[in-house]
Amino acid sequence: MSYFSDVTNICWFLEAEFGREVVRLHNVVGNAVTEGRHIVVGTGSSQLFLAALYALSPTDSPEPISVVCATPYYSSYPSMTDHLKSGLYKWGGDAESYEKEGPYIELVTSPNNPDGHVRRSKVNRSQGFLVHDLAYYWPQYTPISAPADHDLTLFTVSKSTGHAGMRIGWALVKDQEVAKKMTKFIELNTIGVSKDSQLRAAKVLRAVSDSWELGNSKESESFFKFSHKLMANRWKQLRLVVESSELFSLPKFSPAFCTFFNQVLEPQPAFVWLKCEGNVEDCESFLRGHNILTRSGTHFGVSPKYVRISMLDTDENFNQFLDRLSAIMS
Amino acid sequence: MSYFSDVTNICWFLEAEFGREVVRLHNVVGNAVTEGRHIVVGTGSSQLFLAALYALSPTDSPEPISVVCATPYYSSYPSMTDHLKSGLYKWGGDAESYEKEGPYIELVTSPNNPDGHVRRSKVNRSQGFLVHDLAYYWPQYTPISAPADHDLTLFTVSKSTGHAGMRIGWALVKDQEVAKKMTKFIELNTIGVSKDSQLRAAKVLRAVSDSWELGNSKESESFFKFSHKLMANRWKQLRLVVESSELFSLPKFSPAFCTFFNQVLEPQPAFVWLKCEGNVEDCESFLRGHNILTRSGTHFGVSPKYVRISMLDTDENFNQFLDRLSAIMS
Repeated sequence: MSYFSDVTNICWFLEAEFGREVVRLHNVVGNAVTEGRHIVVGTGSSQLFLAALYALSPTDSPEPISVVCATPYYSSYPSMTDHLKSGLYKWGGDAESYEKEGPYIELVTSPNNPDGHVRRSKVNRSQGFLVHDLAYYWPQYTPISAPADHDLTLFTVSKSTGHAGMRIGWALVKDQEVAKKMTKFIELNTIGVSKDSQLRAAKVLRAVSDSWELGNSKESESFFKFSHKLMANRWKQLRLVVESSELFSLPKFSPAFCTFFNQVLEPQPAFVWLKCEGNVEDCESFLRGHNILTRSGTHFGVSPKYVRISMLDTDENFNQFLDRLSAIMS
Repeated sequence: MSYFSDVTNICWFLEAEFGREVVRLHNVVGNAVTEGRHIVVGTGSSQLFLAALYALSPTDSPEPISVVCATPYYSSYPSMTDHLKSGLYKWGGDAESYEKEGPYIELVTSPNNPDGHVRRSKVNRSQGFLVHDLAYYWPQYTPISAPADHDLTLFTVSKSTGHAGMRIGWALVKDQEVAKKMTKFIELNTIGVSKDSQLRAAKVLRAVSDSWELGNSKESESFFKFSHKLMANRWKQLRLVVESSELFSLPKFSPAFCTFFNQVLEPQPAFVWLKCEGNVEDCESFLRGHNILTRSGTHFGVSPKYVRISMLDTDENFNQFLDRLSAIMS
């Protein structure tokens, strides 16, 4: 089994079948424009994030380009950016307070990990390169408002269907030279992307698209209806528990029209971004004291009064989390 | 499907089944000591090469550590090492002429890509970290002399069984802290390694081990007997063509005792390292003029009188290569 999938494609290790199912799923969901885009497949969207930094960094600059993101940001962005002490790019911190002149790369995660809010770019200067991380822009998490139409957008099967261990992500890339450089990065990094995973991911995405099309005609349940219902149910239970006391607070989301479900819906993010109210300064330690493991806001560039908690765990773990959270209030 | 395979293992994304088949295959072949080693799985051995650089680089050094390899070296080593302009490590060129004091990383590829020779480290100074790339240390390519017993050794299914598109490699690592840092690199680079590929690779390795054990008892053909015969046949044909003229020369290999096949055998590398004799200075261009695509010695740190040609292509392509090579002589 060769390294190559299609030598006529810029991304020569992209399996054609996977590429077709990506386009089809975006058309079914209506969450991204695929026309006029090059698809670059990656070993998860993590690899594509690094490929994007490599592709967007100026090659002739005397100093590394700054990579910024508004707080609270995905906790791995800083370490992924800086772990090799690259001379091409370096972590520049919070996009809100970024003041430096010249080129920069801004990461726009929408809906945001960790807090679930819909985001736009913050720096808004002429020399910015934007990387849109839309891992969570799927109907089970957030209303689909319009097809995303950016220069460089990242998606992953990890969050669209829950197959994190498959390690398959994809980028939709407008500029051909950027797509070429991202492909080059993946060549130097891992000489392509597992064909086994790409072919299996193609089958999974096909099943999801099929389930929507068949689900509509036969009234059986589609993947997105199922997962939307599950998330809605978890969020409802969580809000009941949290709002019964004044110890914690949750982000507030406005309902919005979802073009996919064709109705007004509330966001129901993959993570809880919980704030300890009152005197508790270190929310992570406080919750650990009650056997609830979370990730402190400090990792996300903000105060330790915040923690992130996954909403995508097993039913058993989620219910245990709710039980333990309830026990704190009583 | 979660990111995690076994949270109790240092390499928490290693599928246990794959790890077991790696140990079994090394025991069957006798080409590497696995006792007292940590197995780190990678997206091909390329990712493990980068993980090794990350793990072996001093974190507190004022300048990047030099990465060296004797010429002719694998052509991707320099670009893989330098593409991110890392402050941790940088390409230091030919190990034979490396003179600098202090720590360094030396790559020892054995049998060597491109020239097929068995190698040992060249620099031999006290502060060296060695990475042994043993991708081709399998019985179809070279006599197995003894189980390799190094600090850090890389293998890959790409060359052991031919499944390059699977993107699965493994490292055998003696030092626990190095294994931890390599795992951390893969976490930051791709958050683990495809489970689909690991599980399929486990099945492939199992079939190879089974075929040897069953092949011995039932007199049917094992994978290694089949592939050894195929390589022997190709090399025989190639030597017949090349030695019929004085235009080209091939490396000379000494036969050696192979503990796996239990007999004296000649090396039969995965690549031809062909030299243009006489006045031809640019062997790649010369052969391109005869419709033979090769890779010039310049990419491997040596003279353009040399080229590398794959011996692992399809029968059809290999026969076409022999026909075209023969045509040059006549």
